[in-house]
Amino acid sequence: MSRSIQVLRTVQQVRQWRRQCLLKNESVGFVPTMGALHAGHCHLVGRSIAENDRTVVSIFVNPSQFAPHEDLDAYPRTLDRDLAMLGQQFSQKPVDAVFVPKILEMYPSGIVLEVQKQKGAFVTVQGLLEQLEGALRPAFFRGVATVVTKLLNVVTPERVYFGQKDAQQCVVIKNLVKDLLIDTQVEILDTLREPNGLAMLSRNEYLSAETKDKCAIIYKGLLAAKTLFSQASEMGKSVLAKDLREKIEDTYKEMPNDWEIDYIAISHPETLDDLVDISPDLGATVSVAVKVPKADGSVARLIDNVQLK
Amino acid sequence: MSRSIQVLRTVQQVRQWRRQCLLKNESVGFVPTMGALHAGHCHLVGRSIAENDRTVVSIFVNPSQFAPHEDLDAYPRTLDRDLAMLGQQFSQKPVDAVFVPKILEMYPSGIVLEVQKQKGAFVTVQGLLEQLEGALRPAFFRGVATVVTKLLNVVTPERVYFGQKDAQQCVVIKNLVKDLLIDTQVEILDTLREPNGLAMLSRNEYLSAETKDKCAIIYKGLLAAKTLFSQASEMGKSVLAKDLREKIEDTYKEMPNDWEIDYIAISHPETLDDLVDISPDLGATVSVAVKVPKADGSVARLIDNVQLK
Repeated sequence: MSRSIQVLRTVQQVRQWRRQCLLKNESVGFVPTMGALHAGHCHLVGRSIAENDRTVVSIFVNPSQFAPHEDLDAYPRTLDRDLAMLGQQFSQKPVDAVFVPKILEMYPSGIVLEVQKQKGAFVTVQGLLEQLEGALRPAFFRGVATVVTKLLNVVTPERVYFGQKDAQQCVVIKNLVKDLLIDTQVEILDTLREPNGLAMLSRNEYLSAETKDKCAIIYKGLLAAKTLFSQASEMGKSVLAKDLREKIEDTYKEMPNDWEIDYIAISHPETLDDLVDISPDLGATVSVAVKVPKADGSVARLIDNVQLK
Repeated sequence: MSRSIQVLRTVQQVRQWRRQCLLKNESVGFVPTMGALHAGHCHLVGRSIAENDRTVVSIFVNPSQFAPHEDLDAYPRTLDRDLAMLGQQFSQKPVDAVFVPKILEMYPSGIVLEVQKQKGAFVTVQGLLEQLEGALRPAFFRGVATVVTKLLNVVTPERVYFGQKDAQQCVVIKNLVKDLLIDTQVEILDTLREPNGLAMLSRNEYLSAETKDKCAIIYKGLLAAKTLFSQASEMGKSVLAKDLREKIEDTYKEMPNDWEIDYIAISHPETLDDLVDISPDLGATVSVAVKVPKADGSVARLIDNVQLK
């Protein structure tokens, strides 16, 4: 049976709700999302419910992480469906509240998409915004860091949950929480995957069943790198980044001809700096982005990663 | 009689102290300082003590608001004297705690003075960092915004106190608290002045009695502008920025020849944009910086401001 969930619209409402939890000494877990919820989100929510007395989910399509040429308006907004999914999936111990703010609630000074014209307070994480996904979208992680800081200031959760799928986002957030001395525990959960290994993404919905099948190769390449690292580690040996890369590229030779590898990166797990030599102690984050043509002629850009450790 | 004040050295200690206040439902007032306390700081502390159940003062010389060529090491560090002053001044209802963190406590990723080489999370307030004092010291307010965000995240006070003397700092902080949705009330207190009108500054100590006397002219010029604005306001009229500026410059003609006016600015009270026409409704912030030679041949740069409203 679906249960109705308390919907909070304002910062003030969240603070009141939060204060009640505090006075009752109830711990709060928090799952920030942009909506369009899928099994991957539910994985985070389920963990939060298991680990905390209360769980709040935010649904907010954050304008400051979109560029002017990206289609903020086209991002799916499916609040009713999202609420129904949360109600149905977690009927025993439910989600306690969903925070659905309007833009002005989160950006009281207003927000425009052009970074040069933006006014007001923003959070940057120097040294982590320019690599990998940040290279393509220069203001993206600044937008993510800013909105996550705001949300954490409002919700002040004991624990906040993110998926390892967005590896760079996880590193950015772990660093901002540490550096800005925010009193919360960042929990990173393993990527949830389709049966064939494809990482779960809202965008997967736009792929045909046939394309989804073929996408299994993306993770397969990452697993090949992981195996190479594990074999070396077991013997106490390092492995070269170029050998890992070669292993992945070998696997990806079987990709359809019209697919394009955007990047394969072997990075320091905390700084995201490129690594040359991967020691068993430090490990690495291996991430890839692949451009996959869709039936309608447009292109889906799929990202995935594995942690070597 | 001087009372001994609890000295907290770590973020963890402050959080524990803060949690006790919360559980006892005691409000907390916070006065962030860089030490070298004087009557101006005590003015803020006294107000915090009057308005809150508990008061905490931080003493932290923030490296990220110094430039490489500025002398961070030469900044006065007088903890024992500061603690004695707080104990003596507030003997009836004392300061409850002083937070004196080490640099690594506030910058867990470390900090270097060269902005280009800095790593980690920083807070910027776009549109407010480049004018007035920011023109001279490009990373200064970024450093201020970052450390104030950290301190507020640690202390989570009901109210935080700043002096109007640093007008631009006040605007930056009000905006960052609003934009980052930080749950605190920013209290701006009028500038405390010497009997002759000179704004109280740690740096005044380095001026001779004779120079201090002459410095009365700085505030006198600001008051002349304020009078002009008030006269116009009473008749419901605007006043031109250039007329206000002229009024100040007229007064400053009596300054010693070797003094130098660094700037006279007539700014929007919230955005700090230059104003042309000052309406009675909006008012303005009028700020000046003056370079005053000292006996030892070096130069003291004194700032002051008045609010037209």
